[in-house]
Amino acid sequence: MTDRITVNEVGPRDGLQNQAAAIPVEGKLALIEALVHAGIRSIEATSFVSPKAVPQMADADELYPRLPASDRVAYSALVPNRRGLARAVQAGAKEIAVVLSATDTMNRRNINLSLDQACAESMATIAEARSLGMRAKGYVAVAFVCPFEGAVAPEHVLALAGQLREAGADEIVIADTIGAAAPMAVRDLMQAAVDRFGSTVLSAHFHDTRGFALANTWASMEAGIRKFDSSIGGLGGCPFSPGAAGNLATEDLVLMAEQCGFATGVDVPALRLAVRLAAELVGRPLGGRTSQWLEAQDRRAIRQSA
Amino acid sequence: MTDRITVNEVGPRDGLQNQAAAIPVEGKLALIEALVHAGIRSIEATSFVSPKAVPQMADADELYPRLPASDRVAYSALVPNRRGLARAVQAGAKEIAVVLSATDTMNRRNINLSLDQACAESMATIAEARSLGMRAKGYVAVAFVCPFEGAVAPEHVLALAGQLREAGADEIVIADTIGAAAPMAVRDLMQAAVDRFGSTVLSAHFHDTRGFALANTWASMEAGIRKFDSSIGGLGGCPFSPGAAGNLATEDLVLMAEQCGFATGVDVPALRLAVRLAAELVGRPLGGRTSQWLEAQDRRAIRQSA
Repeated sequence: MTDRITVNEVGPRDGLQNQAAAIPVEGKLALIEALVHAGIRSIEATSFVSPKAVPQMADADELYPRLPASDRVAYSALVPNRRGLARAVQAGAKEIAVVLSATDTMNRRNINLSLDQACAESMATIAEARSLGMRAKGYVAVAFVCPFEGAVAPEHVLALAGQLREAGADEIVIADTIGAAAPMAVRDLMQAAVDRFGSTVLSAHFHDTRGFALANTWASMEAGIRKFDSSIGGLGGCPFSPGAAGNLATEDLVLMAEQCGFATGVDVPALRLAVRLAAELVGRPLGGRTSQWLEAQDRRAIRQSA
Repeated sequence: MTDRITVNEVGPRDGLQNQAAAIPVEGKLALIEALVHAGIRSIEATSFVSPKAVPQMADADELYPRLPASDRVAYSALVPNRRGLARAVQAGAKEIAVVLSATDTMNRRNINLSLDQACAESMATIAEARSLGMRAKGYVAVAFVCPFEGAVAPEHVLALAGQLREAGADEIVIADTIGAAAPMAVRDLMQAAVDRFGSTVLSAHFHDTRGFALANTWASMEAGIRKFDSSIGGLGGCPFSPGAAGNLATEDLVLMAEQCGFATGVDVPALRLAVRLAAELVGRPLGGRTSQWLEAQDRRAIRQSA
C-alpha cells in the first residue's frame, strides 16, 4: 500500500472516441500537452482500431509519433488485436492496452468474436507485445454488469484476468465499462482481485453513468487499488454500450484523492485549463461532479481579492 | 450490522430553510405527504427556531399538528434550545433534534454562544426532552471541517458526542455540515464512533458541496452506519455556513443503497414525484447525481414501449 494514486488519463482515447465529430490531430496534441503540463504521467493517447469502426481514432498513426516527448510520461495505445499491435509498433508505441469484455454477448456484439475467441486473441496480442519488449495492460471490460447479460460473476472476471496475466499482462484493469456497478460489488471484486494478483498490478476504470464513480473509486482505494483511469472533464463514454455516460472525471479523482491524503502529482489549476481546452475541442461544457465547488472557490477568491 | 438502511428525510427542514422565499405551509404538507407516500418513514419536518433568524420555518407551530398522521412515520423537529423545545412540545412533537457545532467559532458566529455554553444548552435540552418522554437526537455539526477553524479533531467530536449521549440522546448524528469531508476522514471518524457508541445509535449527515456525498456515504456504510440524513432532490444547504451546497439527495442515497443490496423501503418512482413537487415549490430544477441516469432510464422505457 502506498500513499500515492496514479492517474491514467484516458480522455484522448476513451473520451474523444465517443464524440460525434473527429477532433483534428492538432487539437488532440494540444490537449495531451495540457495534460502533461498539469502533471499527468500516464496517458492513453489513442487506439489503433479500424478507422471504419472508430473514425475518431483514424489519425492514430499520425498522432503517436508526434506525442510530446517526455521521459516522465508513459503513453499507451489501445489495440484490439495483433493487427492493431503491428500498427502501434510501427508508430513507436512502447505500451499497449488490450480490452477483453467479460461476457460472450458483449464480445459478439462489439467485435463479432465469441468470448473464447476474444480471450485467445487478447492473450496472443499481449504475448506478442511482451515478446517485443513492450509493456502490456489487459482490461477486463463489463467486469460488473454487461448490458446484454446482466450481472457478471466475480470468479469469472478473476479467471479472465488470470488468463491475461498468464499471457504476460503487466497490469490488469478492472473496468465498469457501462457505469453500472455499485460500491458493494466493487469492494468485493477489488478485494478478491487484490488478494489474487496483488494491488501493484491492478487498476480500475469507472464511468459515472449512475453518479457512483467516486463512491466506486473510494471502495477500490479501500481495497488497495492505487491506479485509476479517468477522463478530463468527464469526457467520454462507450459508443458500443447502451447507457454508458462519461468516465470518472480526472479532476474529481485528483481532488478526492488529494483530500484523502494521497499524492497525485497533478496540479489542479493546470488541470482545469485542460478541462477548458477539452470543452473547446468538443464544443460543449465539460466537468465532473466537483465543478460547482471548483467554480465556487473561484468566485470566493475573486471576492477576497476585490 | 443489518441489511437495512434508514433514510431520514431532512428536505422539509434543512432543505427548505435555505430557500430565499418561505414556502406556504400547504406546500410543505403536500411535500411531506409525497415523501410518506414514497415510503419514507423518518422525516425532519421543521425547526422551532426564532422566526426572525429563520423566517422560512416561522410556520412550525402551525405545520406540526397538521403533519400526515401515520403510525409508521417518525417525525422530528429541530430545536435550538429549551425555549424551542417548549414550542415543539406544545405543537405535539414526539422527537426532537439538537444541533451542537463542534467548534467555538462556529457556535459564536451561528448562535452567539461559546462552545461550552452551546454544549450545556444542548445537554439541558436533550435531558429535558427525555424527561418528557420524547426521543432526542444530538447532532455534532461541522464534525470534520469548520469554515472558521478548519479541520476538527476526531477525538473532540467523539467527546462532544459522548456528552450528548450522557445527557440522554438516543441517537448521535455526525454531520459534515459544509460538505467539506473526504471519505478517508469519514471512514476514520465513523469507525471510531461505531467503536465507541455502537452503530445502532449513530447516523450520518452529508452535504454534496464537493461531490463527495455518495463516497462519504459509502465510507460510512462500510464503517457500519445504517442511518443517513438526506434531502429530496438534493434541496438545501446551510444559510450560516459559507460554501455549503445541497444535502446528499434522497434519491441518490436510496439508489446507491438499494444497488448495494440494502433495503430502504422507498419506492423510487414515487420518490421522483416528490422531487418534482419540491422543484415546483422552490421554482427551480432539483435532482441529485443520479438524475441523468434516471432520466436516461425514462427515455429508454419510452423507446421500448413505442
